[in-house]
Amino acid sequence: MHITGGRHFLQIPGPTNVPDRVLRAMAAPTIDHRGPEFAELTKAVLAALGPVFGARGPVVIYPSSGTGAWEAALVNTLSPGDRVLMSETGHFSTLWSELAGRLGLQVEVIPGDWRHGADPAEIARRLTADERHEIKAVCVVHNETSTGVTSRVPDVRAALDSVGHPALLLVDTISSLASIDYRHDEWGVDVTVAGSQKGLMLPPGLAFNAISEKALAANRSAGLPRSYWDWGPIIAANERGFFPYTPGTNLLYGLREACAMLAEEGLPNVFARHQRHAAATRAAVRAWGLEVLCADEREHSGSLTAVLLPDGHDADEVRRVILEKFDMSLGAGLGKLTGKIFRIGHLGHFNDLTLVGTLGGVQMGLQLAGVPIKPGGVEAALEHLREEAQ
Amino acid sequence: MHITGGRHFLQIPGPTNVPDRVLRAMAAPTIDHRGPEFAELTKAVLAALGPVFGARGPVVIYPSSGTGAWEAALVNTLSPGDRVLMSETGHFSTLWSELAGRLGLQVEVIPGDWRHGADPAEIARRLTADERHEIKAVCVVHNETSTGVTSRVPDVRAALDSVGHPALLLVDTISSLASIDYRHDEWGVDVTVAGSQKGLMLPPGLAFNAISEKALAANRSAGLPRSYWDWGPIIAANERGFFPYTPGTNLLYGLREACAMLAEEGLPNVFARHQRHAAATRAAVRAWGLEVLCADEREHSGSLTAVLLPDGHDADEVRRVILEKFDMSLGAGLGKLTGKIFRIGHLGHFNDLTLVGTLGGVQMGLQLAGVPIKPGGVEAALEHLREEAQ
Amino acid sequence: MHITGGRHFLQIPGPTNVPDRVLRAMAAPTIDHRGPEFAELTKAVLAALGPVFGARGPVVIYPSSGTGAWEAALVNTLSPGDRVLMSETGHFSTLWSELAGRLGLQVEVIPGDWRHGADPAEIARRLTADERHEIKAVCVVHNETSTGVTSRVPDVRAALDSVGHPALLLVDTISSLASIDYRHDEWGVDVTVAGSQKGLMLPPGLAFNAISEKALAANRSAGLPRSYWDWGPIIAANERGFFPYTPGTNLLYGLREACAMLAEEGLPNVFARHQRHAAATRAAVRAWGLEVLCADEREHSGSLTAVLLPDGHDADEVRRVILEKFDMSLGAGLGKLTGKIFRIGHLGHFNDLTLVGTLGGVQMGLQLAGVPIKPGGVEAALEHLREEAQ
Amino acid sequence: MHITGGRHFLQIPGPTNVPDRVLRAMAAPTIDHRGPEFAELTKAVLAALGPVFGARGPVVIYPSSGTGAWEAALVNTLSPGDRVLMSETGHFSTLWSELAGRLGLQVEVIPGDWRHGADPAEIARRLTADERHEIKAVCVVHNETSTGVTSRVPDVRAALDSVGHPALLLVDTISSLASIDYRHDEWGVDVTVAGSQKGLMLPPGLAFNAISEKALAANRSAGLPRSYWDWGPIIAANERGFFPYTPGTNLLYGLREACAMLAEEGLPNVFARHQRHAAATRAAVRAWGLEVLCADEREHSGSLTAVLLPDGHDADEVRRVILEKFDMSLGAGLGKLTGKIFRIGHLGHFNDLTLVGTLGGVQMGLQLAGVPIKPGGVEAALEHLREEAQ
Repeated sequence: MHITGGRHFLQIPGPTNVPDRVLRAMAAPTIDHRGPEFAELTKAVLAALGPVFGARGPVVIYPSSGTGAWEAALVNTLSPGDRVLMSETGHFSTLWSELAGRLGLQVEVIPGDWRHGADPAEIARRLTADERHEIKAVCVVHNETSTGVTSRVPDVRAALDSVGHPALLLVDTISSLASIDYRHDEWGVDVTVAGSQKGLMLPPGLAFNAISEKALAANRSAGLPRSYWDWGPIIAANERGFFPYTPGTNLLYGLREACAMLAEEGLPNVFARHQRHAAATRAAVRAWGLEVLCADEREHSGSLTAVLLPDGHDADEVRRVILEKFDMSLGAGLGKLTGKIFRIGHLGHFNDLTLVGTLGGVQMGLQLAGVPIKPGGVEAALEHLREEAQ
Repeated sequence: MHITGGRHFLQIPGPTNVPDRVLRAMAAPTIDHRGPEFAELTKAVLAALGPVFGARGPVVIYPSSGTGAWEAALVNTLSPGDRVLMSETGHFSTLWSELAGRLGLQVEVIPGDWRHGADPAEIARRLTADERHEIKAVCVVHNETSTGVTSRVPDVRAALDSVGHPALLLVDTISSLASIDYRHDEWGVDVTVAGSQKGLMLPPGLAFNAISEKALAANRSAGLPRSYWDWGPIIAANERGFFPYTPGTNLLYGLREACAMLAEEGLPNVFARHQRHAAATRAAVRAWGLEVLCADEREHSGSLTAVLLPDGHDADEVRRVILEKFDMSLGAGLGKLTGKIFRIGHLGHFNDLTLVGTLGGVQMGLQLAGVPIKPGGVEAALEHLREEAQ
Repeated sequence: MHITGGRHFLQIPGPTNVPDRVLRAMAAPTIDHRGPEFAELTKAVLAALGPVFGARGPVVIYPSSGTGAWEAALVNTLSPGDRVLMSETGHFSTLWSELAGRLGLQVEVIPGDWRHGADPAEIARRLTADERHEIKAVCVVHNETSTGVTSRVPDVRAALDSVGHPALLLVDTISSLASIDYRHDEWGVDVTVAGSQKGLMLPPGLAFNAISEKALAANRSAGLPRSYWDWGPIIAANERGFFPYTPGTNLLYGLREACAMLAEEGLPNVFARHQRHAAATRAAVRAWGLEVLCADEREHSGSLTAVLLPDGHDADEVRRVILEKFDMSLGAGLGKLTGKIFRIGHLGHFNDLTLVGTLGGVQMGLQLAGVPIKPGGVEAALEHLREEAQ
Repeated sequence: MHITGGRHFLQIPGPTNVPDRVLRAMAAPTIDHRGPEFAELTKAVLAALGPVFGARGPVVIYPSSGTGAWEAALVNTLSPGDRVLMSETGHFSTLWSELAGRLGLQVEVIPGDWRHGADPAEIARRLTADERHEIKAVCVVHNETSTGVTSRVPDVRAALDSVGHPALLLVDTISSLASIDYRHDEWGVDVTVAGSQKGLMLPPGLAFNAISEKALAANRSAGLPRSYWDWGPIIAANERGFFPYTPGTNLLYGLREACAMLAEEGLPNVFARHQRHAAATRAAVRAWGLEVLCADEREHSGSLTAVLLPDGHDADEVRRVILEKFDMSLGAGLGKLTGKIFRIGHLGHFNDLTLVGTLGGVQMGLQLAGVPIKPGGVEAALEHLREEAQ
């Protein structure tokens, strides 16, 4: 354990800094998951979650990590051998497509350079080519946690619509939900995949599927074997406020509290706050003379910023220095980006001054690690934040 | 919410009363799941878990409920169409066999009357008949949470050995681990299934597979599709102290603390405490003139006691009265036992005086609900506890 | 530390079992004691406290133990050499009179046998004899924590009124407030002394003075030196929501929560619950063939019950056995009652089933310690509780 | 309540940000204050406190605010009418001298300009003039929380010694203990006054007197009335691990944890950390073109920095803007400094990045409030911190 004064700065792009309120809520005694008090808890949580997803239909809660919700989205809607179209946007989209393959699906991957989001035009081309409608699902990662690039989901939806393809649209919002504007119903998403440990400000341990009418219909004929992930018994039991197997009670306490905090701040304010912090971070990165990984101005993530280092500099060494000297955790480059980038998480329970501290640590760490930067990054961020505060 | 003084009595057979120490441990800030402090946590937890299972081999931890660990045990060791032999001991053994069927296994169920454990002699007969060794796994629920009957796992092991059958032995210890004597290695179990919310004294949200060498070998050729539950990547990542997907960090904090508490008390003392409370509970039930559901003296559960009501009395009404009047939750009869029994959980973080309070509430509740009982149940339990304390 | 399963039974007559809700409330981050959020906290707490004391006038909160509030009541209203009349009801009334002496007051003590409350008739006699009105204050302990005897404060008030004596009436409610019916205004009390760690269900660390108009007037001319305890600056600062020195912020969080819990249950229900538990405890004591210390049926305490042991039996040995065998703390005999009694606390956050467990531990402990008792005490208590539940 | 993401920045010079570890430790159930587990707690806490004060003699713990410990230091060592010599260093030294007057002491105040510490030469002059040794105590505030000026206690000690005056030396370390180097024994202090809510990282509610042999001797003849504050019964009871009245149990839990944290970091490291943050803060203030209140380079506080605003600018308006826009609390100017300064607390549980965030908020707030500053303060602080980290 790092021994020094003050709180650790957990600036990875999730798990995020869990608010004290949420931790205290989770510390309440576990209750009978078949009793009346539990039914009220379930109903309160489900009622609060809908607006967070922008979904009027069912939201299924799993005791699992977000990876489980990826699997759930697939096994509930698809059959062995079904074709799925996935866009390679980074490490996590790659993991999801590998997962799909292991479940027995035929995965068609649109390659990407890990600096852009999913390409709606290319998706449209692929779907057009699929004249027999063998592609049953299009899978997109809304916010690529490994790159800090946000895919434009409404444009993907428009791509499907423009070619009249009936494939389901499955979207991973693990690191965007409750941080970056997202609208399950309005954008015509069929399954939204999410997890607890990012914008929802909880520890890891819960994962979610928000489900459209069309996905529910697909569920009835989907042939992949499933039991734990099966939507049916969960939705049925939820009607009465219960779950078909023991739910993660104390995390649900935390979820109720986190949803209350989001409602108090207001989702539009939450989104604006994330955008402000992302913009201030980019201002700092550019003032240092470094490059943001995301290459399309329309696709900068509100949740995290990935910073490219100049050739010859090891991002993991920068992270090591920062952890040792300033007790701050940053995200590593993953997969083919290992050592080339580091990622600054600025999502969840976070504010202007914590961002300033974060960027101060990054600036000092870069300098200590010998990365040639121009000073003034923190001042640039301060400038941005001050203007926004006015 | 029930409004009265004092703490709720959560005397269902799980989730159990989570110790304050564990709740406080869980309230620590979430840390970077890829950092050095996390690696220490993982290693500490895995080192502490082995003795709890009596296992020197790997123990896999899932962010999931116990139901997930049932699924994990099957998908990691079996292939589509494999035959499995299961003993019907109650509601949960039935759920497990249904789950196996949904995954595409051929399930052969040995029927039972829900008042006895798995029958080793009948298992031996079935295996003898399986001359071609098509049965790939024998599944047994160590402690049937729905009935309070404990199956004699060593005798089941002996049954397999006596007929020289190579099937794997999969055992559900969800409501027995850390409450009733259990020995994964010594008893020759291949996969032990467990959950966090019973004897481990945690909230629900973690589940476990302890794995034998033989099960690891089976894993290499097992053909059921799997991803989330796949042992391989977890065991590999655990070597370095990490997980292939985001683990349930705060529940792991609680697990570390709970294992420390078990070690402080000493597992043999923990088991003896549960036996003492079970015996005192049976003394009370019999003094009331009521019948314990478990019909074999060798098979009484240390975790819970199911109480049969006389005909014409509704156990759920008794439970309702007790919840309303005395703020205590008891377990309902499940499946075909609905309304006929209630279940008293006396497992986990529990002691003599809390048991006395529990039995006092049951006695008063039975009387208030009009069930004809002889007084003196609590006194009989006190007698037993006092003698044990001497 | 005692190592066994389950929660400790803290059945001393205070500090009492602090509810989880209160402990969690206290775990919130400390805030600026001069900021707007703090002012809201102060105002909320003061508004909630008034009804608990039955006082419309000021209630002063000290960061101190109850002993400090004793001192505060005296130094704020009296001058060096003033005469005060105190009734010896037990150990704590004795401590309070000794304290008064140390502050330079002339203390006149009405002796008592530690089995009765203050004697209103004798108080009237003493006051009648004080023709020159030199007695400036009459001090009474409402509930003697050392004996389980409650003084009849309205009768004491009537005694003062009947003889037309202008002395102030100062009442210690440390172990009665929020447990036993008490009414500062209605009963004409001038200063009510209280502490946080009993019926208010908080840890120790806050103490209180509720103050009448008459006491405020006396304060203006009172000549005892004072600074920390001085009401004036506190009442003045409280107007704006602040304190003249740093207040006990986190205990105030707990106080806000505890007052909310009292309001949810309703004070009349709280009082009735304490009376029920006291009556059930006496039923047990008498069924055991033991004697309750309190000798006047009108004066039994709702907060605790002191139990006299037969000659030749050491109450501290009984307590030691119970702590060792059953992890329960009981109150010792204090002062001249050392070894002769033990005290069962049944106040604060407490309910029927916890009382049953408590009495079960007492019964077993008495037997294990070789005290000759009749069995059946717990059954007698159960009988009482069951009837009350009907 | 301020509704925004992230944690509040509590940068007043106390109460300070309480570490999560301490808050969780305080959330443990209250125990019997007369039982064996409590005795262990007391002994552990007292053993840990000695090194923090640099005292081998007794340290007395009060359930009170620091103000109470001021009073305790006086009433335990002095008699009515005794003369005490006090140095006016700011608001708190003034409050302490007023308190002394209210207790009946004759207070001689050495006037000061609130920008310097106590003047050892002037103290020597006053003591020399006191040929009959009527001055019984010299009182000094080690760190003036209202000004950010630290008095040179060793020089004050030398002043007493140089003139051979027998007066006691009483020192207030409320905002310096465990933040700024301090040595009770080595510096020949007779009573050290401290509180829980600053460098000790606890919520308010505990206060301390560390006591020399000479002070203990003075205590035996000191004639001021006292009861709650009386050292004698506390020191006697502490021998066996107890207290003469109910102690602040849960705050003691927190104190044990906080002392453990100080020991883990090491007091010299703790002091160095505070010095580093103070120096970085001054670097920022000077880069902004503003003036630090403390006028003597030898006397800058490690705990806080008071910043003078240019004429015509209201410091409270700056604070208001910062609280509203950036959710940070700063200290107000007190007494005659109201509106002229604000105070930045950088003591307690605090680290480099939180300081950077703090200074970022101050910089933006000054700009938003229209105070003319040069940019670059935060960069200057970063420069300092980075050099120190190397």
